[in-house]
Amino acid sequence: MSAYQAPLADIGFILEHLAGLDEIAGLPGCEEASPDLVAAIHQEAGRFAAGVLAPLNPAGDRQGCRLEDGRVIAPAGWADAYRQFAEGGWVGLSLPVEHGGQGMPKIVSAAVAEMWASANMAFAMLPQLNVGQAEALMHAASGELKAIYLAKLVSGEWAGTMNLTEAQSGSDLSTIRTRAKPQKDGSHRLFGQKIFISYGEHELARNIVHLVLARLPDAPPGVKGISLFLVPKFLVNADGSLGARNDVRCIAIEHKLGIRGSPTCTLSYGEAGGAVGYLVGEANRGLEVMFVMMNEARFGVGLQGIALGETAYQKSLAYARERVQGRDAVTGKSGVPIICHADVRRMLLTMRAKVMAPRMLAYVAAGWFDSARHHPDPAVADKHRRFIDLLMPVVKAWSTELGNEVCDMAVQIHGGMGFVEETGVSQHLRDARIITIYEGTTGIQANDLIGRKILREGGETLQRLIAEMRGVADELRDSAELAALGASLADDLATLEATLAWLLAAGRERQAEVLAGAVPFLHLLGTVCGSWQMGRAALVAARGNSDYLSGILGLARFYFAQLAPQTAALARIVTEGGAAVVESGEAIFG
Amino acid sequence: MSAYQAPLADIGFILEHLAGLDEIAGLPGCEEASPDLVAAIHQEAGRFAAGVLAPLNPAGDRQGCRLEDGRVIAPAGWADAYRQFAEGGWVGLSLPVEHGGQGMPKIVSAAVAEMWASANMAFAMLPQLNVGQAEALMHAASGELKAIYLAKLVSGEWAGTMNLTEAQSGSDLSTIRTRAKPQKDGSHRLFGQKIFISYGEHELARNIVHLVLARLPDAPPGVKGISLFLVPKFLVNADGSLGARNDVRCIAIEHKLGIRGSPTCTLSYGEAGGAVGYLVGEANRGLEVMFVMMNEARFGVGLQGIALGETAYQKSLAYARERVQGRDAVTGKSGVPIICHADVRRMLLTMRAKVMAPRMLAYVAAGWFDSARHHPDPAVADKHRRFIDLLMPVVKAWSTELGNEVCDMAVQIHGGMGFVEETGVSQHLRDARIITIYEGTTGIQANDLIGRKILREGGETLQRLIAEMRGVADELRDSAELAALGASLADDLATLEATLAWLLAAGRERQAEVLAGAVPFLHLLGTVCGSWQMGRAALVAARGNSDYLSGILGLARFYFAQLAPQTAALARIVTEGGAAVVESGEAIFG
Repeated sequence: MSAYQAPLADIGFILEHLAGLDEIAGLPGCEEASPDLVAAIHQEAGRFAAGVLAPLNPAGDRQGCRLEDGRVIAPAGWADAYRQFAEGGWVGLSLPVEHGGQGMPKIVSAAVAEMWASANMAFAMLPQLNVGQAEALMHAASGELKAIYLAKLVSGEWAGTMNLTEAQSGSDLSTIRTRAKPQKDGSHRLFGQKIFISYGEHELARNIVHLVLARLPDAPPGVKGISLFLVPKFLVNADGSLGARNDVRCIAIEHKLGIRGSPTCTLSYGEAGGAVGYLVGEANRGLEVMFVMMNEARFGVGLQGIALGETAYQKSLAYARERVQGRDAVTGKSGVPIICHADVRRMLLTMRAKVMAPRMLAYVAAGWFDSARHHPDPAVADKHRRFIDLLMPVVKAWSTELGNEVCDMAVQIHGGMGFVEETGVSQHLRDARIITIYEGTTGIQANDLIGRKILREGGETLQRLIAEMRGVADELRDSAELAALGASLADDLATLEATLAWLLAAGRERQAEVLAGAVPFLHLLGTVCGSWQMGRAALVAARGNSDYLSGILGLARFYFAQLAPQTAALARIVTEGGAAVVESGEAIFG
Repeated sequence: MSAYQAPLADIGFILEHLAGLDEIAGLPGCEEASPDLVAAIHQEAGRFAAGVLAPLNPAGDRQGCRLEDGRVIAPAGWADAYRQFAEGGWVGLSLPVEHGGQGMPKIVSAAVAEMWASANMAFAMLPQLNVGQAEALMHAASGELKAIYLAKLVSGEWAGTMNLTEAQSGSDLSTIRTRAKPQKDGSHRLFGQKIFISYGEHELARNIVHLVLARLPDAPPGVKGISLFLVPKFLVNADGSLGARNDVRCIAIEHKLGIRGSPTCTLSYGEAGGAVGYLVGEANRGLEVMFVMMNEARFGVGLQGIALGETAYQKSLAYARERVQGRDAVTGKSGVPIICHADVRRMLLTMRAKVMAPRMLAYVAAGWFDSARHHPDPAVADKHRRFIDLLMPVVKAWSTELGNEVCDMAVQIHGGMGFVEETGVSQHLRDARIITIYEGTTGIQANDLIGRKILREGGETLQRLIAEMRGVADELRDSAELAALGASLADDLATLEATLAWLLAAGRERQAEVLAGAVPFLHLLGTVCGSWQMGRAALVAARGNSDYLSGILGLARFYFAQLAPQTAALARIVTEGGAAVVESGEAIFG
């Protein structure tokens, strides 16, 4: 079994050549992110991930968490690892210096977040919650709440959670029932039950800060009547010290397929008179604030797909180089490592391509995120904000779907050994199975993409994106060596554009058909974005001269030959396949 | 959580209209299989599967097996269920009457085997071993061995195993090291260790009969030096009663991702002087005999893919009809069951299509099997034997790959609940993960398909199959209602034929490229076979007039619209994608 090693060469290549690290480092507010410092941060994070977090991962899976008298016991070693993690300043890496963070741009923290999730996804979920929660509080909380909570969340001294789901309320938050009763002192008392709360209870941090969606007494029905409340596990005294236990407790934890090292809690609020909570942002507009946290979480989950894929790929590559089995089909030589078999090689390259393509897109998106926030030219900032809004569902859903596939393939490469839990590779498959579900399923992401991000604005941003991608196709066609890739990308862009035209024409009138094609369309857009980034990578690689760059060039060719052909099939499914879904009666289900 | 119900309508439709049950029942030796009796058998099997086996499945997964002092303890209730199973005569359903079986054709027993695996795959693996072992012994064992062992295996009083794998010898059996030492009395003594032996030890049956691959002292190296031995757990006295314990014991069982109710054993032979074994068939030709058992097992594993898919589909359909979440996108009505959402409906239909298409092909193949064995016209028998030889790797690998995908989608439809083990749907995903691996991985099946089944004979049988499929495309085109399906099938057949031509031309010279396309080609052939069978089903359905038949027609349209478009993409990957796999250096792996 091989140990995880942070893919520093890949990270460095993408950040420098595709995601524009130099440009980002030149933006006001990002000056700290010099290439040298960034490389040092990534090296150090890689060391911590490989040295501290990865070794805890298999045991965390085996031991899981226990619930004893309302206390949740984390796996052995996690408390110490979390202490080191917080002391290292990793929690606040991307958070503002004024709140105690390191103020690094997202382009830097994204690669670090990927490493944490590669090394130990169940662990990595915990600090990720702090980041999202801090973003939400900075966005909407009162000055008083910020003063009390932000610094502790940024340092990691306290932990965060997000409380959305109730038994009847999963993807659809309109049916939330948790109630918030206003008090004379301006605080509220909360009553209700939330399920599936990641790290809803534990003792790794001294306090836990819950952000909870609930309804005020006079709230209108549906999603426009949901407010957001901050509910601390321990009440906080005026001097910042911890006070009494609040009226929230963990009444159950789930026995799950994966991420067993992380507790998934049922939290009960208000069994003893009401949990003290504080309104965050305006009444009845809680969902908007929660979406700040959710967007952060969605990006993070997209990175988890890449991260699990990377770990699974590394294990598979090492296994395929070690495991001797069979005869080389061409030379006839017997006793060769299985990487010599064409189909194993195909699987390994598929895995690598399915890690690298979404990684390129995700890091590029992280760069847009920074540019949208910091770029002095409002036109550039606006363009990048639009691009990231458009592609956030793709980064979340496409990266996680591919991550899942990569983890599945890792088991296949390991053969019978992959099915045996001791080998460790099946854990990644089990862990990965949640990432296409939580923080919005692939179906929810695809509906968001089609409805809010494309149809609502008549496809304007996507058209702009297509124009940008077409520039890369032209560049590729200008190169004798890469002209075939350019022609292929141009074809696929034409297919994408035609599919977009179909969607816009079908629009509201054939809405069910359009929505039946939402997930295939998301895959189509993801695949083309992958070609775009692989094409850009090929342009860089063709100009250089090193083993690494020749490998990137080969990988780009592989992507175009093996993955890009899906584009045409997906376009047919989107434009011609919807009718067969919606026009059939109940008898079709057998 | 819904309970499994045998899909009797689907089974009846396919057997009657696609697999030719009437014709099979008219063959000499198959006269017993009257439609009435067959329907009664399937109904009774469905009752036993749903009533006895399915309820034991989740607990079997939770409890798993235990190894105590060399004894393997099966989950609670399994001994009693196995007793009922054997007493019901189910073990020998397809085995000859002369050995105590029911003599039913494979077309009948295939559907029954599917039900067992749907209800409880871990349990169903046990009696399946008896069938394969009995086939192998009938094929090759001496009269004496047959007299002692066959009836007990057919009745299920004794159980069977197949012992191939050793630590260094998985997909490649040429490196097997287990030794067999000839004795003066004509028996042998075996020494060695076998791993991954399903039901290698248990107390569900009174004796266990191991078929073991081993080497004789003077054996040539490689696969041409492997012999097959029968090694009973308890030696058998001349009067058929059980004698002393043989020198074989279980020294470990695996902790697995799935099929936890079934023990996967490491067996040690000959630690105390040698395990008594008896040669089956000729010396050094053991692999040929084992292939009789393996072929039976491969077909059975293909059925497991269909079976697990069916169970996962049933659970998902029930859940999607019950679970209320969200608003109907078209009508705006809130609080609708999730089956109303276009993407959930698309997923459910994808699942149903991915169960039904391989089921149609598998049952048709079962019919070919019977015809090959019993048809009085040697030309017909020969054609069907060729078809089944050609398509066995497809039935095994395509059915299991799709089964895996269906089980994965079932978790997705259940959302967060799917990730919680108590819901039960994740068990099917875990169970399913072995089926693309054991009895020959998908890669091994694909190599077999390309190398032995196509290139070796210049594609002759596949050409015949394409001609047969073209007849269905023509029939479809003759029907106004189905002409579009016919045109689509004709296109895909042209694509298949062109791909075959490329394979034959590339052949031995570009062998690595050809093998890099083996798995995509297997999927391509499977997909086209699915279109073929769905087309046949549509022809039947269009002639009839019932809810069920209109559902089949809708499902065929869905298959052509949503799954068949893969054909063109796969063909491109086979013919253009291989170079990118084989021409890249080591740097491509990063």
